[in-house]
Amino acid sequence: MEETLALAGRLHFDHEDLQLALRLITNTGVRTRHLVQPIEMTLAHPGLEERNRVYVREAKRRIPSVVSQALRNAAITTDEVDAIILVSCTGFTMPSLTAWMINELGFRRDTRQIPIAQMGCAGGGSAINRAHDFCLAHPSSNALIVACEFCSLCYQPTDLAVGNLLSNGLFGDAVGAAVVRSSGGRGIRLERNESRLVPGTQDWISYAVRATGFHFLLDRRVPGTMQELAPALGEVCLAHGWDATELDFYVIHAGGPRVLDDLSSHLKVKSAAFERSRETLTEYGNIASVVVLDALRRTIATGLVPEGARGLIAGFGPGITAEVTLGTWTAG
Amino acid sequence: MEETLALAGRLHFDHEDLQLALRLITNTGVRTRHLVQPIEMTLAHPGLEERNRVYVREAKRRIPSVVSQALRNAAITTDEVDAIILVSCTGFTMPSLTAWMINELGFRRDTRQIPIAQMGCAGGGSAINRAHDFCLAHPSSNALIVACEFCSLCYQPTDLAVGNLLSNGLFGDAVGAAVVRSSGGRGIRLERNESRLVPGTQDWISYAVRATGFHFLLDRRVPGTMQELAPALGEVCLAHGWDATELDFYVIHAGGPRVLDDLSSHLKVKSAAFERSRETLTEYGNIASVVVLDALRRTIATGLVPEGARGLIAGFGPGITAEVTLGTWTAG
Repeated sequence: MEETLALAGRLHFDHEDLQLALRLITNTGVRTRHLVQPIEMTLAHPGLEERNRVYVREAKRRIPSVVSQALRNAAITTDEVDAIILVSCTGFTMPSLTAWMINELGFRRDTRQIPIAQMGCAGGGSAINRAHDFCLAHPSSNALIVACEFCSLCYQPTDLAVGNLLSNGLFGDAVGAAVVRSSGGRGIRLERNESRLVPGTQDWISYAVRATGFHFLLDRRVPGTMQELAPALGEVCLAHGWDATELDFYVIHAGGPRVLDDLSSHLKVKSAAFERSRETLTEYGNIASVVVLDALRRTIATGLVPEGARGLIAGFGPGITAEVTLGTWTAG
Repeated sequence: MEETLALAGRLHFDHEDLQLALRLITNTGVRTRHLVQPIEMTLAHPGLEERNRVYVREAKRRIPSVVSQALRNAAITTDEVDAIILVSCTGFTMPSLTAWMINELGFRRDTRQIPIAQMGCAGGGSAINRAHDFCLAHPSSNALIVACEFCSLCYQPTDLAVGNLLSNGLFGDAVGAAVVRSSGGRGIRLERNESRLVPGTQDWISYAVRATGFHFLLDRRVPGTMQELAPALGEVCLAHGWDATELDFYVIHAGGPRVLDDLSSHLKVKSAAFERSRETLTEYGNIASVVVLDALRRTIATGLVPEGARGLIAGFGPGITAEVTLGTWTAG
């Protein structure tokens, strides 16, 4: 945080809204973030081609270990994976890195490839929901989710709106993985998945695609959408016979502190219920589609979730879209 | 075809492999193609930003009518669509155009968005398979598939390899849509879906991502992969108790004439069995993910497919990946 504030102050000393930007960055509560490159290289823009080359290089370097760990946690081998869902919005490849994974990491050649590039921060929730669908459609199968986000590779030095300065102080880099099994295992038994779009907000979170790459546009009205999404989460719970205000655990996308604050107030849920998401935000920043996987990891790590606990996973992203999952904890 | 050959001869009069390129283009058998812009504008490169703007503009202009027709054909309304699978590899947006569709075309705000951007020409098969999975996972639901490919917006004037010259004479623009229903309707009752990757070929069909956009790379060994994919299709059929050499209909991705010729020879299927795919290629060119939808439309239009006929849909694309579907014809 100190480094980010000092850097923003130095780079934008003559920006008319510098003080506002610094205040917004401070308010994110982000203390530390990880970047795939040293800060000097992050601040340089060597062109889209080189940026995408770095994206591929770093993805190939970092995906294998999170995949191994996810498979170990799920007690399955590469041979038992029937689908790979790779979600990433901060670089682009065709074929998807799923093809490289099959070729180089030992997955079967009939593994389904489900790459998702356009769901942004909702991508983690989307991946869980598509994995859930896949396992429902193909009983006795397993789906591997990989979320790979190098937000720092979308840093655009010439984007100077306050929203951009804030984003530069908010987003972090991360890679995560998880396994959804059709049966067995421990963790959340997925029971229901749904999606909700907030009408008329398709331009509020978006990429402008330019020669310099993806330019992230963030409208200041975004946190206010929790007013619409909270009742939507309530609806999803109600359809499942649950009450959204009194679940046992919540795994929420930590887009920023106001997203969490507003959602807890609209849902009438104590702010402490989102503590794991807040920890992700504080320690890693907004790591886009990886947030829900990390907040889930932290939820599991507490060791405090009892058998049968009912919980909700919610990813939020462009659209504006909420990807919602309901499930029950099982220790296996 | 005449225009393409004349243009290639004029633009590349001093290219050392011009005669080879002209012969390869002639051999594609493509007679006509559609382009979203006049040829002069297609040949210009106004930059990635403008190209992507044209992509979005033309997509919004052309998607509504194919969607209406697909819904009419399936006898469902926008209200009855539970998922939209939008497959497109020739432009990029975030959010996906699925958000725009929900906002502007009257779909429900809880419609699932499943955008697929990285499967290339296999995207049509991939979309069918994901729609199949979705309907299996959510009984009594319907999935809408939209495939939108403006290959001409990926024309790169500075790419001069023979493979590029061939691609410039091969690919066409198209938009298609189809509905997969959980029950009812007429068409192919989807019974099995699988995927196969040809090991070690991940660089044979790929995009280089540059400041000028996506640069398509096509290895000359691509058609030869039918030698590996034909037995893979055979395996999928066998697992379903079917014989790939004697199905009643085949809906095959027409990547080029050799793909169809080699596949018919390796599968030991008469060349006439792929006639619909050949018509798509001849009349529209290789329209990427839309090929299988158009070849399927032509198959239906013959009126010659009897109740209970068994058939195969196969999309081929980067990876190199085959997305395979087996199903049985039903008149509803």
